[in-house]
Amino acid sequence: MTASASRRTSGRGRRPGGPDTRGEILAAARASFAERGFDRTTIRAVAADARVDPALVHHYFGNKEDLFLAALEVPIDPRTLIPEVFAPGLAGVGERMVRTFLGVWDRPENNQALVAFIRTAFVADETADLLRNGIEAVVLRAVIPQLRPAGDAEVRATLVASQMAGLIMARYVLRIEPLASLPAEDVVSWVAPNLQRYVDAPPPPRP
Amino acid sequence: MTASASRRTSGRGRRPGGPDTRGEILAAARASFAERGFDRTTIRAVAADARVDPALVHHYFGNKEDLFLAALEVPIDPRTLIPEVFAPGLAGVGERMVRTFLGVWDRPENNQALVAFIRTAFVADETADLLRNGIEAVVLRAVIPQLRPAGDAEVRATLVASQMAGLIMARYVLRIEPLASLPAEDVVSWVAPNLQRYVDAPPPPRP
Repeated sequence: MTASASRRTSGRGRRPGGPDTRGEILAAARASFAERGFDRTTIRAVAADARVDPALVHHYFGNKEDLFLAALEVPIDPRTLIPEVFAPGLAGVGERMVRTFLGVWDRPENNQALVAFIRTAFVADETADLLRNGIEAVVLRAVIPQLRPAGDAEVRATLVASQMAGLIMARYVLRIEPLASLPAEDVVSWVAPNLQRYVDAPPPPRP
Repeated sequence: MTASASRRTSGRGRRPGGPDTRGEILAAARASFAERGFDRTTIRAVAADARVDPALVHHYFGNKEDLFLAALEVPIDPRTLIPEVFAPGLAGVGERMVRTFLGVWDRPENNQALVAFIRTAFVADETADLLRNGIEAVVLRAVIPQLRPAGDAEVRATLVASQMAGLIMARYVLRIEPLASLPAEDVVSWVAPNLQRYVDAPPPPRP
């Protein structure tokens, strides 16, 4: 239990925003997302846990997805990056995906925060659930509509996610060589056609 | 042998094999692999930690790689599976890789042990190092020679590993749908050509 949660049980009422209110909202949000998952977490419940008005949560963090990304301390916003990558259409999207991905992950300051996030996500069952919820709620929700024209959009999106997740594991978390030190342009050349195939290859024949 | 004949730093003597000797060797091996990594762990040091003769470690577990796989409780031996997959040559190896991989991972009894292993590997820094050491020492060491004919064997092997690692994360650890429930044959159809491309596509042009 967090300090703010234990104070809440003492029966004291809502507080106005103070110097550490933002941090206490984040702590309450982290606890709720981990315990209840993304879908069953509400701004209202997080506000109650942090003993503030829901409007203050909205004021500090925007909507539930914004709060989620802030709670996870993800240093980027996939919801702006993904539409940019898909804006020119599906042709060439594999290359734009890897390039954008490397642009984020190869920067050491992002890298450290993201790797720390990934690692903590495996300490407990609930946090693995949380990571899955987050990928589904934020990443796939943005990618799937873009892939609709190709058909099998949900399968394609999770296959793309699998290659991206594997790149994260091999290049950044486990740092397996030579992939960990491969120049970004070589990673693009190797990986982009595979992502492009997941995006626009004909679906496999069904027996 | 007598206890006084071989006192170690612990001050306790060696013991002959007993009912829990096997388990004590495994515990000593896990501690050593986690602390020193694969390369700097020796059968001799593990034997000393477990207060047994090195010959007993060899007797129970074989060589260092065998001991490593036993210590990690990996329910399969990649060193027999990998040569089987590559035996018919590089043509079609992508499909054989996914099929063999799914044959192991889709079985619930393997799945649980493997997912538990992957998760514990992220609790601490050393265990992530340990997992990397293990992949390098056991998996890549077996795959890289097989890929030599294609050139860039090390890069190709780690790219294949990245897609496999991503499949593990998405399908088994995070269980992202619809990939987590996709019939095995569909996974083969989608993923095999991508693995095959990592195996035998021409290397990217270098500027």
